[in-house]
Amino acid sequence: MADAVTPREEDYSQWYLDVVRNAKLAENSPARGCMIIRPNGMALWENMREALDGMFKATGHENLYFPIFIPERFMAREAKHVEGFAKECAIVTHSRLTTNEDGDLIPDPESKLGENYIVRPTSETIIWDTYSKWIQSYRDLPLLYNQWANVVRWEMRPRLFLRTAEFLWQEGHTAHATKEEAIEEAERMLDVYATFAEEYMAMPVIRGRKTESERFPGAVDTYCIEAMMQDGKALQAGTSHFLGQNFAKAFDCTFTNEDNEVEHVWATSWGVSTRLVGGLVMTHSDDQGLVLPPKLARDQVVIVPIYFNDDQRATVLKEAERIKQELADAGIRVKLDADDNQKPGWKFAEYELQGIPVRLAIGPRDVKNENVEIARRDTKEKNIVPQEGIADRVKTMLDDIQTSLYETALARQEEMTTTVDDYDTFKEVLEEKGGFIRAHWDGTAETEQRIQDETKATIRCIPLDQEEEEGVDMVTGKPSKGRVLFAKAY
Amino acid sequence: MADAVTPREEDYSQWYLDVVRNAKLAENSPARGCMIIRPNGMALWENMREALDGMFKATGHENLYFPIFIPERFMAREAKHVEGFAKECAIVTHSRLTTNEDGDLIPDPESKLGENYIVRPTSETIIWDTYSKWIQSYRDLPLLYNQWANVVRWEMRPRLFLRTAEFLWQEGHTAHATKEEAIEEAERMLDVYATFAEEYMAMPVIRGRKTESERFPGAVDTYCIEAMMQDGKALQAGTSHFLGQNFAKAFDCTFTNEDNEVEHVWATSWGVSTRLVGGLVMTHSDDQGLVLPPKLARDQVVIVPIYFNDDQRATVLKEAERIKQELADAGIRVKLDADDNQKPGWKFAEYELQGIPVRLAIGPRDVKNENVEIARRDTKEKNIVPQEGIADRVKTMLDDIQTSLYETALARQEEMTTTVDDYDTFKEVLEEKGGFIRAHWDGTAETEQRIQDETKATIRCIPLDQEEEEGVDMVTGKPSKGRVLFAKAY
Repeated sequence: MADAVTPREEDYSQWYLDVVRNAKLAENSPARGCMIIRPNGMALWENMREALDGMFKATGHENLYFPIFIPERFMAREAKHVEGFAKECAIVTHSRLTTNEDGDLIPDPESKLGENYIVRPTSETIIWDTYSKWIQSYRDLPLLYNQWANVVRWEMRPRLFLRTAEFLWQEGHTAHATKEEAIEEAERMLDVYATFAEEYMAMPVIRGRKTESERFPGAVDTYCIEAMMQDGKALQAGTSHFLGQNFAKAFDCTFTNEDNEVEHVWATSWGVSTRLVGGLVMTHSDDQGLVLPPKLARDQVVIVPIYFNDDQRATVLKEAERIKQELADAGIRVKLDADDNQKPGWKFAEYELQGIPVRLAIGPRDVKNENVEIARRDTKEKNIVPQEGIADRVKTMLDDIQTSLYETALARQEEMTTTVDDYDTFKEVLEEKGGFIRAHWDGTAETEQRIQDETKATIRCIPLDQEEEEGVDMVTGKPSKGRVLFAKAY
Repeated sequence: MADAVTPREEDYSQWYLDVVRNAKLAENSPARGCMIIRPNGMALWENMREALDGMFKATGHENLYFPIFIPERFMAREAKHVEGFAKECAIVTHSRLTTNEDGDLIPDPESKLGENYIVRPTSETIIWDTYSKWIQSYRDLPLLYNQWANVVRWEMRPRLFLRTAEFLWQEGHTAHATKEEAIEEAERMLDVYATFAEEYMAMPVIRGRKTESERFPGAVDTYCIEAMMQDGKALQAGTSHFLGQNFAKAFDCTFTNEDNEVEHVWATSWGVSTRLVGGLVMTHSDDQGLVLPPKLARDQVVIVPIYFNDDQRATVLKEAERIKQELADAGIRVKLDADDNQKPGWKFAEYELQGIPVRLAIGPRDVKNENVEIARRDTKEKNIVPQEGIADRVKTMLDDIQTSLYETALARQEEMTTTVDDYDTFKEVLEEKGGFIRAHWDGTAETEQRIQDETKATIRCIPLDQEEEEGVDMVTGKPSKGRVLFAKAY
């Protein structure tokens, strides 16, 4: 049998790790804090990447690639940026290994670099150094570029997909002639992320702005999408930054505008990472394992043939192959598991664990009756249906699953959102239920910090659709103009 | 006007760099030896990646991802492997930056790592450490995995695409139950590479085996494809290694076979890199710039509208849009450049430089006569043709270009291959003509080294289609059973 998964009720963190490991998405590696992404996990990331890449290109962006190494001196150029990343970076100091007296490999002291390199934690610095050479005139603008890359942030408490020392991501870096255009770009890309999260991942998100203390180091404004996980904790799923002229000033990136005046360029950057795979797992999965939205599942359908002797085997496999072909012809990603080393029961459990959205099973009686058994992974409904019209039926079911996963997650997000007016209730709700808490805040970093110190909840965002509403901060009693969204977070 | 390109006759190396830089494929970066791949270059690599990835999947491989960091101690496990990579690696020794008394950023001495990490130059070690955990029984075999990744080898004489400290590549790592199966896999992947080079890149290659001294560090046998560049130097374009049980032994990776005996696993690894982009440039380009095979060109066709006033503009653009749509509907990748900031003459030169295979130009007279001008980038032929049937005409032309580029390159490769029997002629041909030289070799590393020291030519490969032919080594006079391929190489 497939390895068992710890129930969510018993230990949510362990449940998550069990699902990730048993569904063979990823595992820890011998390089501290870095993960090995296994084929099942990589297929998910590749499907995400493909969908996002198409959306980036449709909004006018092109891909390029900058080096993994950032010269140490570049990091110092933007004060807040270096402050944000200096404490968790991988520093390359030597270029050769040698053997010491004990026969151990050590960095050759003679290969010490004249200048150290930082393995990129993000690429603003090296990119803006280059943009300063590429941009002279308003005619060179905008630059709408993105890169798919690996980055490293030395993580002390790693967790597969959610927080790893190395992760895969994309980072968009755009350059604009005006402030307005840059803000519009940052908002556009937040929309792209939200659309992707909702339409592909079936994961509802709240669009908002970060408070000053939660902003990206070097940003003027950080937009984010926040999702609610099943345990009542929020997950920051993507960020889009309006960088103002901070990096342009740090790297002296100017352009001549249409009036022949020299100005600094306006910037954005935006990124999502393999963390999304963790969000996907936590949004839909259950105690039987992974549940995947059909749009991102590598295999949308698995066919399990059932037989008890060689004669049956030939007949059943012939039908199974025919159905597989019919589904494939209809554009459905389908896999037929005809491996005789495993029993059907084992396969049922294994594909349930792997989250394949639809399972078809066909045995001798089904062949005779021209039927097939169809089972939904998400609701676990099972039915015997006619083979005729199976492709249409599966297509409809896949659409249903995609919609239903989203609706279930949305209902949970709504159910997990509480509006609160006083601090005692706030603490009570946080403790007993978790989730998003809508509360008034006086706008100061002090109050934000105090709440975090006392409750571990942070302001996830100031929602973009925040309604104007007079109120008072639940802690200080100072005036507030609207509610912000608190939660404990990953 | 677009920047001029140094003619090949004048300075081939400079010509190459001019083409790469002026066609905006790549440029040097502030991180020593690392390149910035610009959107035009990245689009080529992405198209290559997509085609190769499809071929890998069609041969049963799945993608996964291993960490960028390799623990120092892993490197020591396979003796030849560490010898091969120790002298050119990036070593991570610290995890935090701090400021010294002068206010400069330095690695925080307190963040010195307990164990250093090597930025992967290739991933055999970390992968085989993991495979030893994944593989227990013959039922777990074969493992057919690949990863797309960046790797770092500290290069002292970097050259855009051809030799860079960081490069992008794929590395396949497979595990097998038998020697025969592993050899078959290594040969299969060499075939995939050769097919890709010839069918997509239109770059003919010689399939062969490396001599012992040119083998991958840790391999039992290295297969390679070698291509001939326009300056008479060879380019190693891809390698596929039969690793025997070397890494399995180094990382104690065993399995229980069908007879219930414990054996070491058999391995292969194989890779191609962004170096292929350099090979593509050097195979087809000319003194006007880049020439691209249609199968890999991001834009296969560019349409340049020509007009002299606003009335003409409206009429011409309407026709140009219609033609663009017609081509796009036929599955052709087409771009319409309606930018009024640049004159048609500038655009002609620019797209010639960028190597777009087919250019269509349409002016007021063409609209009136229902014609369009069609120009081929490779042969520079130009014709006025009817708009009717333009999609079919362009498709045929794109196919012609793809075939013709291959045939031209193949004819050059044949012309640049000389069969030689004595060492004086060998040196003369190498000096005056270059190219591949087919000569007898006595099979010893000493002779190989002597020839390299004296002439800079290396044995590129022992061709897989080597004919048995009695002969004597041109240097030592010792017996030889067949000819090998010598050349100076990149």
